[in-house]
Order: sequence, then structure tokens, then C-alpha cells
Amino acid sequence: MISRYSRPELARLWSDEHRYETWFAVELAACEAMEEIGRVPCGTAASIRGSAQGKLDSKRIDEIERTTRHDVIAFLTHVEELAGEPARWLHLGMTSSDVLDTSLALVTREALGEILGGIKKLREACAGRAREHRHTPMIGRSHGIHAEPTTAGLTFARWHAELGRAEHRVDEARQVISVGKIAGAVGTYANVPPEVEARAFAKLGLVPETVATQIVGRDRHAQVMTSLALLGTAIEQIALAVRHWQRTEVGEGEEPFGKGQKGSSAMPHKKNPILSENLCGLSRLLRAHAGAALENVALWHERDISHSSVERVIIPDATTLCDFMLARATGLVSGLVVHPERMKANLELTGGLVFSESVMLKLVETGLPRQRAYEIVQRSALLAHGGKGRFRDLLAADQDVTSRISPRDIDQAFDLGHHLRHIDVIFERALAGNEGNLP
Amino acid sequence: MISRYSRPELARLWSDEHRYETWFAVELAACEAMEEIGRVPCGTAASIRGSAQGKLDSKRIDEIERTTRHDVIAFLTHVEELAGEPARWLHLGMTSSDVLDTSLALVTREALGEILGGIKKLREACAGRAREHRHTPMIGRSHGIHAEPTTAGLTFARWHAELGRAEHRVDEARQVISVGKIAGAVGTYANVPPEVEARAFAKLGLVPETVATQIVGRDRHAQVMTSLALLGTAIEQIALAVRHWQRTEVGEGEEPFGKGQKGSSAMPHKKNPILSENLCGLSRLLRAHAGAALENVALWHERDISHSSVERVIIPDATTLCDFMLARATGLVSGLVVHPERMKANLELTGGLVFSESVMLKLVETGLPRQRAYEIVQRSALLAHGGKGRFRDLLAADQDVTSRISPRDIDQAFDLGHHLRHIDVIFERALAGNEGNLP
Amino acid sequence: MISRYSRPELARLWSDEHRYETWFAVELAACEAMEEIGRVPCGTAASIRGSAQGKLDSKRIDEIERTTRHDVIAFLTHVEELAGEPARWLHLGMTSSDVLDTSLALVTREALGEILGGIKKLREACAGRAREHRHTPMIGRSHGIHAEPTTAGLTFARWHAELGRAEHRVDEARQVISVGKIAGAVGTYANVPPEVEARAFAKLGLVPETVATQIVGRDRHAQVMTSLALLGTAIEQIALAVRHWQRTEVGEGEEPFGKGQKGSSAMPHKKNPILSENLCGLSRLLRAHAGAALENVALWHERDISHSSVERVIIPDATTLCDFMLARATGLVSGLVVHPERMKANLELTGGLVFSESVMLKLVETGLPRQRAYEIVQRSALLAHGGKGRFRDLLAADQDVTSRISPRDIDQAFDLGHHLRHIDVIFERALAGNEGNLP
Amino acid sequence: MISRYSRPELARLWSDEHRYETWFAVELAACEAMEEIGRVPCGTAASIRGSAQGKLDSKRIDEIERTTRHDVIAFLTHVEELAGEPARWLHLGMTSSDVLDTSLALVTREALGEILGGIKKLREACAGRAREHRHTPMIGRSHGIHAEPTTAGLTFARWHAELGRAEHRVDEARQVISVGKIAGAVGTYANVPPEVEARAFAKLGLVPETVATQIVGRDRHAQVMTSLALLGTAIEQIALAVRHWQRTEVGEGEEPFGKGQKGSSAMPHKKNPILSENLCGLSRLLRAHAGAALENVALWHERDISHSSVERVIIPDATTLCDFMLARATGLVSGLVVHPERMKANLELTGGLVFSESVMLKLVETGLPRQRAYEIVQRSALLAHGGKGRFRDLLAADQDVTSRISPRDIDQAFDLGHHLRHIDVIFERALAGNEGNLP
Repeated sequence: MISRYSRPELARLWSDEHRYETWFAVELAACEAMEEIGRVPCGTAASIRGSAQGKLDSKRIDEIERTTRHDVIAFLTHVEELAGEPARWLHLGMTSSDVLDTSLALVTREALGEILGGIKKLREACAGRAREHRHTPMIGRSHGIHAEPTTAGLTFARWHAELGRAEHRVDEARQVISVGKIAGAVGTYANVPPEVEARAFAKLGLVPETVATQIVGRDRHAQVMTSLALLGTAIEQIALAVRHWQRTEVGEGEEPFGKGQKGSSAMPHKKNPILSENLCGLSRLLRAHAGAALENVALWHERDISHSSVERVIIPDATTLCDFMLARATGLVSGLVVHPERMKANLELTGGLVFSESVMLKLVETGLPRQRAYEIVQRSALLAHGGKGRFRDLLAADQDVTSRISPRDIDQAFDLGHHLRHIDVIFERALAGNEGNLP
Repeated sequence: MISRYSRPELARLWSDEHRYETWFAVELAACEAMEEIGRVPCGTAASIRGSAQGKLDSKRIDEIERTTRHDVIAFLTHVEELAGEPARWLHLGMTSSDVLDTSLALVTREALGEILGGIKKLREACAGRAREHRHTPMIGRSHGIHAEPTTAGLTFARWHAELGRAEHRVDEARQVISVGKIAGAVGTYANVPPEVEARAFAKLGLVPETVATQIVGRDRHAQVMTSLALLGTAIEQIALAVRHWQRTEVGEGEEPFGKGQKGSSAMPHKKNPILSENLCGLSRLLRAHAGAALENVALWHERDISHSSVERVIIPDATTLCDFMLARATGLVSGLVVHPERMKANLELTGGLVFSESVMLKLVETGLPRQRAYEIVQRSALLAHGGKGRFRDLLAADQDVTSRISPRDIDQAFDLGHHLRHIDVIFERALAGNEGNLP
Repeated sequence: MISRYSRPELARLWSDEHRYETWFAVELAACEAMEEIGRVPCGTAASIRGSAQGKLDSKRIDEIERTTRHDVIAFLTHVEELAGEPARWLHLGMTSSDVLDTSLALVTREALGEILGGIKKLREACAGRAREHRHTPMIGRSHGIHAEPTTAGLTFARWHAELGRAEHRVDEARQVISVGKIAGAVGTYANVPPEVEARAFAKLGLVPETVATQIVGRDRHAQVMTSLALLGTAIEQIALAVRHWQRTEVGEGEEPFGKGQKGSSAMPHKKNPILSENLCGLSRLLRAHAGAALENVALWHERDISHSSVERVIIPDATTLCDFMLARATGLVSGLVVHPERMKANLELTGGLVFSESVMLKLVETGLPRQRAYEIVQRSALLAHGGKGRFRDLLAADQDVTSRISPRDIDQAFDLGHHLRHIDVIFERALAGNEGNLP
Repeated sequence: MISRYSRPELARLWSDEHRYETWFAVELAACEAMEEIGRVPCGTAASIRGSAQGKLDSKRIDEIERTTRHDVIAFLTHVEELAGEPARWLHLGMTSSDVLDTSLALVTREALGEILGGIKKLREACAGRAREHRHTPMIGRSHGIHAEPTTAGLTFARWHAELGRAEHRVDEARQVISVGKIAGAVGTYANVPPEVEARAFAKLGLVPETVATQIVGRDRHAQVMTSLALLGTAIEQIALAVRHWQRTEVGEGEEPFGKGQKGSSAMPHKKNPILSENLCGLSRLLRAHAGAALENVALWHERDISHSSVERVIIPDATTLCDFMLARATGLVSGLVVHPERMKANLELTGGLVFSESVMLKLVETGLPRQRAYEIVQRSALLAHGGKGRFRDLLAADQDVTSRISPRDIDQAFDLGHHLRHIDVIFERALAGNEGNLP
């Protein structure tokens, strides 16, 4: 991923250096396991670790690979350069993918760990803003059209809940990817007994693939990628809301605007929701990655390597992007400038039209058929919408209304507090702490 | 989905009739809940049920919709036609989406139930064939090139394990989608108290959305669709293997070929793996559906309806396809004609080249550096591959080999039983019964 | 495609009946060509046409297919039932795909012809509204934030131009797909000479595939599908704009709202942009189809049939959807209720902030460095934006401004006519008639 | 794109340095145009060029951007640091996107130019191999099953033709993207007259956007990306064929295998088609990019910036990948080791079954109904396929055959030359030189 959209933590995880360190850790874990079952002389792993740990030179490995055209062989050759004779005991009975897939599992798990940390922070930011604006009235909109009142806090609470589901999916994907294999060329343990894998994975905190081929099943990686694409949509949902709130005509919320920041090179008056637009764009990339990952699952026989080039790009890119997006979204939510006064003004914009359902229900309660009540109320609503008077006044002048319900009924129908009387139930559900649990 | 790729069970689930039946069930559950809290006269739901159950006419509803341009209002109008006055108590305080989303959850859950049943059958077929061919030797291939021996049963066992993971994902998605809402226009319970939802959902076996907008979160539906796309890749994996096995030059397996079936209109000798090719194609459609579902999640404010047209197509289509594919794949796996004698012949095709790793490891055990052993063995291997002699003879003639290992060592390296001695460990893991558990 | 999103014209094109009619036309064209070169007795085609034209029974063909499991053989068997002995001369030296692919080209070409007609109508609607609102001032927005003035007509003109590019792509795709093959099982003309193909295609208006396999290259179909996905984005662009215009706070445009139509089952006051939301959703399906089509191109050797199941779904679905979307979009654009008075009100909403660039440029013209001018103007702009006065008054009170430019300069910077003085150039370019030409 | 899949030529095109050079070129072209119409003092552009050309420091620009959070303003500030006072005349009346989009067009055009060069080379390689193997007999396969004879050269000729179509699409996309804009904040030329754009673009070889918003239409970029995804499928088609040819059991072709190259770390005998597998994987990435590009087209009003983050990744990545893939595929095709003797052996593998259609047609010519002839031939074919004798012997022993056609007829049906007698027609069509023309 380009550095503009990478945090250093993730860039390091996917660096050549860290990849080779992880390969080294896997080879040593396998070597130690071999020592334990007596297939390799005691002390071999310790000796190699002593000679090579911290000294792996990724440039040198690349240089060797230009001849061998095989990355793991290049790596092993380099370790032999550093550690000498004992290095010949490494990789015994293993195939390259034993190292590569097991390592990929380890680094992906680390990356998902960072992402889970990032989700936690973003959820905390959402919960904080939810509590803050629990009772800040705002017009609820459907289809972009005013519908009925809600509160600003409910939106933040919703994001908190959605991110809880995203967190659960990523956490599940982390389990699914925490699987390696040390089982040889076609997964039959032909030249390395299952105990080696078991012992090595006990050290590494992994589980063996149930039935491996040369590699671990690629549905696991695809599940990681779809879980990240779904996480992306949760962030996109936040960003899309901010973009709508910040529209000039709406003005209910604004992205934090830094000192010295310039909104536009041409228009000094502009403050644009660029963080949010950026996040909407990046979520498209995550969807694209998921698509490629799904094409990667079905392979020929005991494996073909067509998935590899794809994974070299999409796994680092998608995890790095998610990490970046979470950090950016957390700043966005925490720093979001909320304008309760604009929310109030917008709420009143339609002169009470948004209470039309309440009026209709009052009429239904008097025994009027629903469709008839609907038509009566719609009549005044469309007049008001067309600028032919205030909705409430029109209702008060409509004999079909006044013959059935009292001015006090109408008052109640137009009462904001009445509309919002149940929101505490929702908040309790959303912020109770166990909302990461499905469903 | 076109009828060619639909089973009647799923076609019925997604019929207009079943949709309206389900809407009716949701409206009645809500109505009963309203009765229980005293908001609707006792007996209303029973009266409506008595008048309208089994009499809903989807054509009539469509007719009404052509005027109202609103499906739920058309439905309610029709129920009023059938049930008369009591029908005005239906839908009280509810918004269309309360019915639509709750019903969509119910039907999707039914569809996923069918799919889970289908997965179970396919897994049983795989387990059966796995046991049958547990010890049928076959050459394991990577990159399409002979690698090391394995058994045919291991491939079936692998499919069983992969489908177990697919099953787990679909099952999880079924939980995630078993969520409805009866919470009004913007999810605030403005005109219907939370108890109504709670009581209605107790009847329907659903859980309320944590924080609803006008609708339930669309990440839930997207998770369903990605779980089906992943299921599709597991079926694709099976189909792709069969296609490879059936190649003229390989001939290790063949699709069942019906009486009277014609492989080609031009070529009477052809028997083509058309079921498998078909399944590979259909899995692409599932990936496409997942992509559209991921675009459907982020909506405007408290909802926009852009997701709806997409869902009308992709949710019925993807579930119907999966159900069809599972049935077809089960027939394919059960009826697959396996040719152990061709497997044996192919295994011997390279004159033992596939044992090259074992020979190399014998050399390494004598103290030779791995890279040196590799080069010695590769030398004979490339000669044999180039048709310059049989691999084993070439090794026996190579002093670098014979000076280090005995003819008995070479015998052992070329022993098939030795290669396959650990496969029972894998079978136990794969078929133990709890393999649906992750990871 | 479900009937909700299908027009009868396209449904007919993709019906079984029309498919078999087209197969029949291709078989007869080939048969006539065979007669012409003396390989088939004169009069054979005429005799078969006489017996079977208009009498093909798709249900009977399906019945036969249930035994043969091969659609073309079932078709030929049925023709033999109708036409008797002469029918044995049909399909001579041909393979099923000679018929299928050639027919698919013919029907797809018909479908694209309908779509091109639909684009033409939609472009006319856009051009009409563009002329109508050529001088209707509207605030131009970037990032959802007021930027600088434009006119409503320019947006319609832009759609007209974008659709011109879409039209060009579809037209090009129609040429690319107008390719068939009558070249036998692997495209070598083994049993049918090239003249037969040439003569038959002269009748059908097709061109032979340059190098066929068993089938025509699938990049052609993928190009059709990507051209439709791109057309979808042009329609989505229109729909997205309408949704924004119709927002309660913006109110600059509204979808036509039918007599008796109901916006919401719960809220009688609602008028929702549902046509536009629908179109945004449907464009996602077109993108999904394009993705599946791109997976369909690379096939095994001289062909595998994995593409077929995909095409049975996506080619009818995507063409039917595009046709439907064009008709819907044309109604939407023609009937769109434009509110020039709301446009004017919105334009004035920020008290002239939108003229900030003009003021800045006036300052630059006096010799001030650009960045300095930017800062001076931004100072007043941010105050005005924060509600600390009207922008123009603040400028007039800022000595850094008044020391450099005169009140007359400021007047000119705030002049709408000045801002819009060049739009005729754009209209000429957009509506000149040749705008379908690229770029 | 990661360096593993980048050639230096493309890496340079998408470097920060080249981006800023291109921005500089656009600003100077606009400045010169301003000079020509008298809005900027003569000699300004020359002076700035003299001070800043070749001295732009991308690190310094990044540093400034960290404060301004706006890339173009950072760039202009840096140019002012280098060029002093005259720099204030730059960017007059322009908006950032005037520079960004115009520059993006220029660099994308350069990248597509490289790609078109790469296609040309790959097509030449295909044409060369096509001529070389024009008459090398090979079994044609459909569904992976032997069908009828063809020649190896025909496959190369087909790739040549498919790549010709890909070339045409990329070339068309290059035209479509060669469009810029210098039209201000919402595309109205409010502060910069159309002549400036016209004059500047005459220098840069671009065309103005027909109707711009703040930016150029994103359908143009999406067309570029779909054309590249389609190019990817043409390369994938080549790679997929090689993978099949190289299968151990097939062995008809092999990737070039370098000196010192190692096929597998575990199995010294392996030669894997890793270049081809790699290319298959990379084509998935191009499809993913196209999906993201299609989501990028529909933007809010006169523009939102959500497309930008996506484009920063996918346009460099997709063009760089295509360039890399073309180079790799050219090496693959040129160096491919073809084994005519294995082709011959495979052709004979089924003992003449592949001539079954010819036999059937001979029977039809005697007056037998097609379906009857089919059944007669299929009978012997299935016996032969089941190992119950050689096909030809079985036919010779079948009285339904021998009573109708002579041994000479059978000879002719089994004649390879007869099957391939028309292939020159195809070669002429494929390699005539104008095959880039559609269709």
C-alpha cells in the first residue's frame, strides 16, 4: 500500500525484514520440534539462532533469489551463509509452503490484532459521542427526506453496534487464519511426522490445517478478506453520514479542520469533508480485494500457485488500509464538530410535517380505517409541502380532523419528548458492553 | 433465478405467494402483541387470520400496487378487502420496513436452512467417498506437475473439511440474519413500544436489531452473501478437481454419464465433465452477488432504498443457486466414477521421479548440506525428465549418491507405504465429526 | 430478470421461443449455404422452413432435453419431428456451438439495438431539459459544499455528453459481438468449408470469428458487459443527482409523483426519490455482471463450457436491466420537477461566500502573492461561515482588502452574470450533435 | 505496485517526481496561454521554468503538505520558494483539479503508450510462434477432453487475434483519457476563459472535457480500467493454456527454465509453470481494479473526491501490472519449449476416437438420419473409450457401418491432412496485419 495510506506499524509488519524474521521463527520452531523427537541433534536450533538472529539481510536474500528464482531456497541459502553447517538441519522434510503459509498465518494474525485494537478504539469513540448526544434531537431521514425525529446519539450508538458485528467477524477470521501446516509437499507428512507440526505449533500458537494440500486452504484467507471488506462498509457508513451532515444546506456536523489547512486551492471559503470522502473511496478498494480473494480459493489438485501473486498484494494492502482507515475514522468521530442548533433548525424546517404519522395514528385510534386516515393527513401534508400553509394550521382547519381528535391530541402528536420516549431502551442494548456478540 | 438452476423448494420460498404469507405472519404476530399489551381489541388477529389466511391473492396485490406504487400498502389494502374492518388494526405504528425486513429475515433463514441441509448431504457424500478411497494411491500434484504420492480419499476428506468451514459460516450468517425490527419509521419506537417487537419476535423466533434505522443493518445481508460466495468456492474446488481428473490424458475420474445422454452434437465419442464446468460457472455468479451486496451496506442517514432492487435479485438468486449447486455437487460426488488403475498408472508415469525428495533427505541425513544434496538429486531428475534414463537407475549410477547411501536406503525412499504412513492421522482429524468447528 | 425490472420487448428477445427461432434461422442459413455449394440437395432449407417455421414448440424441446441432456440435439430432434427426412441435412459438419454462439450474437445484437434506442431517447430528454434550464442559476457544489455558481442546464448537458460516451461504447460492443462461427468442433472447418460460414453470415449480417476455438472469443461478451456496466454508471450519475436535489434541505428537484402514489405506509407527508434510488441499486447489479463476465474469458484449451451457465444469467439479465433502466431514467428526466426558486434561495444561502475565489483573484491581480490573497479572503470567509457576519460586509471592513481593491471590483466579483458568461461555449460543445464521438 | 511486479519504466512514470514534473508542465502551459491572451506578463512562464525546472523537490512538497493538507497548494508553495514573485501568476483562475486531472490524463496516456508497446511485442512473439507451428498437429480439446485435431500454431494465432482486440480497446481508452480541463471550480470557466484551456491543450496534445464538473468524467478512467482488465484476460488465456500444456500427463509445452532455477525446495525433480500461474493470479487483480473503478464514476453534484483515494492506488497499480505482465508473457511465449512429439503421441492416445465425427458424417451422407448415425458411431466410441478395443477396428466390425461406407471412406475420415486442409484460411485472416481492427 502506498505510504499515504499506511501507518508505520502495519508497514513494518509487512516489510521484507519482518517476513524473513517470521520465516526464521517458523524454521526454528520446526527445528526444535525435530530435536525433541530426536531427528536433529540437540542444540542445532540454538546454534542457528545464535548465529543468525537479528542478522538476516533481506537485500542479500533478494540477490540470491535472482539466481534461484525461489524465495525460500534463497532464504535458506542465506541462513546457511550466516549459521554454517548446522543450517543444513533446517527445513528437513518440509516444503516451502510449510514455511510460507505458516508465516503468512502468523503475520496476518498480527495484522488482524492491530485491526482489532483499532476497532476497539473506534467503538470507544462512537460510544463516547453516543452518550454525549444521547438526547440531542435530530430529524431522522429516510430517502434523504425528513421522516421522524431521532437523536444524534442514536446514530453514534448504531455505528458502535455495527462495528461490534464487524469486530466479531474479524475476530472469527483471526481464528480461522491461525492455522499453519508442516506436512510436506502434498500434505501427507511423507518426510516429517505429524508430531513435529504439533510441537512446533504449540510454540507458535497455531493449529494444524485439518486436511492440507501443499498449502493451507485459501477459503481461510478469503474469509479474512471478506471480513475486512465488511469492516470497510461499517467505516464507509460513518463517513457517508458525515458527508451528508456537512453538506452546506444541512450543516449538522463538520469534520475537524486543522490550523493552516486549506479546503480548496481556488475557493478560500471551502471546508470539505475530505477525510470522509477518502474513507468512502478506500472502502471500495477493500471490496475489490475481497473479490480477488474469492477467485483465489479453488486451485488445481493439491495446489497451484496462482493465488500467491494476488496475496502478495491484497493481504498486506487490505490489512494496512483497514488499520489506516480505523485510525482516520477514530479521529473523525472523536473530533467531529456537531451542531445541535442546526439539527434543531432542520427539525423545524417542515413546520411539523414530520409528525404526520402521529396525527394519522390518533385518527386511526378513533376508529377511522387506516387508509382513510392516511388520505386525510396526506391532504394537509401535501399542501404544506407545496407551501400552502403550515401543516399544523392546515390540520386545525380540516373538519375531517377536528371532528375526530381534540387540540390536545394534536399537541401530543407534535410532542418531541413523546417521540423519543423509548430511546433509552436502544441505548442500553447498544452500549451494554456485550454488543460484539452476535447477532 | 432461471428455472434451469432452481429446485422447486427454493422457487417456492421466493414466490410471491410465500412472501405475502410471510408478511401476513409478521403482521399477525405484531397484532397479537398489540392485543397482549391492550392496544388492539382482543381477537382482532384471530378474526383477520380466519378471514384471510390461505386466501391472499398475489395477482390482486400486484394490481393494487400498480396504483399505489407501494407494495406494503397494496398488501394491506388487499387484506382489508378480505378481512374487513378488523384489518384497520394491522400495521399500527409500524412502517413498511418493519414488515419487509422482518419477513426477509424469516424467508432468508428458511433458505439458509435448506442450504445447510444441502451442505450436510454433500459432506456425507464426501465422507463416504473418502472412506472408500482412503487407501487408493494417487499422485499428488502441485502446479499440475507430479509431486509426491497421496491417496484419492484424502481429496474427498479435504472437501469434507472445507465444506465444514463453509457450513460454519453459513450457520453463523443464519444467526446474523435472524434479526428483525418493529420499531417504526426511523427505529425509535415512536408509535409502537419495544414490548410489541419483543413479544412478536418471541413468536417468530427472531431477535430485535440492536440499533435499527428504518431498516435492519445491511451488513447482515452482505454477510449472508459472502458466506454463500465462500460456499460457492468450496463447490468450485470440487468441480475443478473433477474437471482435471476427467481430462483425456489423466482419466482418474469421470462424471456419471446418463443413459441416452449425448456429450457433443458433433462428436459421438465425447464424455464431457459438464456438471463440473457448470458448477465452476455458477460459483462466479455467487462472487458477483457478494460484490453487489457489499455495495449495499452503506446507506444515507436513517436509510435509503437503493439496496432494495439489488436484494430483490441477489438474495433469491444466490440462495437458489447455492441450493441447486449443492444438490448437483452431491450427485456428482456420489456418482463420480473413480479409476484407481489409471491413478496407479499415472503414479508410475515418471519412473519414480516423485520420490526425489525422499532420496535427497536420505543424503542430508548422511551429513551432506541440503543444497548440495538437492543439486545431486536434481541432476538425475532432470536427466530422467529429459528422457535420458530412468530416475532410479541414474541415481544408482551416480557415485555421489552411492558413496553415501545404500541400495536399501534407496528402496525405502521409493516405498509408497512409507510415504503414506501418516494419512490415518489426517483422516481422523477430518472425519471425526466435529470438523465443522473452527478453525 | 424478474418481471418487475423487465420490459416486454426484452423479455421476448430472451424467451425460449425467440431463442429457438434464432437457432432455426442460423441452421437454415447454413443449410442454404450448403445448398449453394452443392453439399445439400436444393430446396432442403425451403422444405424445412415450410414444415417447421412458426411451429417450434419450446416445451417439447425441453422434454426431449430431459433425456438427451443436450439442448441442441433436443432442438434438432424436434425439428426432425416437424420436418421429417429433409431435417437430416441440417447441422451438417457443424458443432452445437456453431449454432449457439452465432445465435447468441444475433440476439445480443438485437438487445443492444433496443438499448441504443433507449440511450437515444434518454439523451433527447437530457438535451431538452438542458435547453430549458440553460440559464437557470444553481449553486455548483463540490464535496457537497457550495462552490461556485453554475446553471441547472449544465448538469443536464453533462448527462447528455456522458451518455454519448456510453452510447459509443455500446455501439462498439455491438460491432464486436456481431461475430459468429460455423467452423466445427475446434474451429478448423474440418467438416464444413469456410465458404459455408461466409455465405451463411452474409445472410445473417455477421462476420466470422478471426480464429475460433469451438466457440467465439469470450472477450467479446465481456466487452458487452463492461460497456453495459459503464452505461449503468451514467444512469447512476443521473439518479444520484436527483436524490441529492430532492433532499428536504435542498429541494431543487423532485421526481414526478403519481396520482394515488403513497410515499410511505407510515408517513403521509413523504415524497421519496424512489425511482432514483432504484436506479442506483440496479447499477450495482450491472457492475456485478461485468465482474462475472471478466471471469468468463479465459477457458481451457479449445474451450470449456464453464462460461455458459454464467451467460445464461448475466447476458439476458444485464441487457434487460439496461433497457428497463433507460426507460425509467427517461421518464425520470422528462418528468423531473425542477424548482428554480429553491435553486436561487440556496445560491444565496451563504451570503456570497461562493464568490470568494473571484475576490481573491482581484487581490492577486493587484500584485499580491496568491497565498497571501488566499489567507486574507479565507479570514473573512471563515468568520462568515461561523456566523460572525455577512461575507461581503466583512470584506468591506477588512483593510487588507479595501486598501487594494475598490467597491466596484467587489461588485464585479459578486456578479452572477460574470460567473456564467462562458457557459454557451459548453452548451455548443455538448449539444452540437456529434457528441457521441469520442473522446 | 510492489517492486516484484513493476518494471522501472512504469515505476518512474508513477513516481512523485514525475507527477510533480507533469503538474509543472501543466501549470506552465496554462501560464503561457495566459500570457498569449494578455492576462499574465510576458516571460512569466519562461522565468519560472528557468528557476524551477529540474529542481522540484518532492520531499519538500510532502513536508509542506503536512501543514496545508492540500497537495496542489503545497506544490505551488514550493514552486514559489524556487521561482519567487513570478510564481504568483501560476494557477490563475484554476482549481486544483485543473492541474490534477489534466496531469493524470498525461501520465495515464504515457502509461498506456508503454502498454501498447508491450502488446505489440507480445503479438509479434505470438505471430512468430504461430508461423513456426502452423503445421504442428495437436489434438484440439474441448472440456479438457480430446475433440478433433488442430495445430499448435492455431493457438498462437488465436492469441495474436485476441491481443489485437485488446490492443484496440486500450488504444480507444487512450483516446478517451486524453482529455483534460482548465475550467475552474465547477467547470464554468468562471475565472479563466475557454481560450486558455484551448491554447494550453494545443501544447499538451489534449482535448477539453465536453462538459466538465470540477473534474473530468470518471467514466473515462473506468473505461481505461476495464480495457486493462480485458487485456488481463487475454494474457490469462495464454498463461492458462501453458499451465495445461505443461501438466505432467500432457507435456506438450514447458516454460523456459533458467540455469540454477529451483522448482521446489523439497522436490528436486519439479519444473513448475510458475510464470503462467503468476500471470493468472495477476489478472485477478486487474479485474478487482476494474470493479473499484466502476464504483468511482457516479459522484455527488459537481464532484466529490471519493474517487481520488481509489485512483491513487488502482491507476498506477493496474497500468504497472499490465506492463509487467506483458513483458513476462512475451518472455513466456518466445521461450516456450514446445514438444511436437508429445503432441503427436497425445493425438494418437485415443486410437482414432477423435475422428468419430468424420465417420458419422460419412454415414449421414449415405442418407442415414443424423441421430441414427450418431448412435451407431457412439456405440463403438464408448466401447473403445471403455478399453474394449480400438475404435477403428470396432467400426470395421460393425455391420451398420460396413454396410454403408467403404474402407476407403473410413481411411479418409481418419486422415489428419483432410482435417487440417482449411487452416491456411484462418492463418491468413489472423496474421494479415489488420487484425487489430474490429471486430
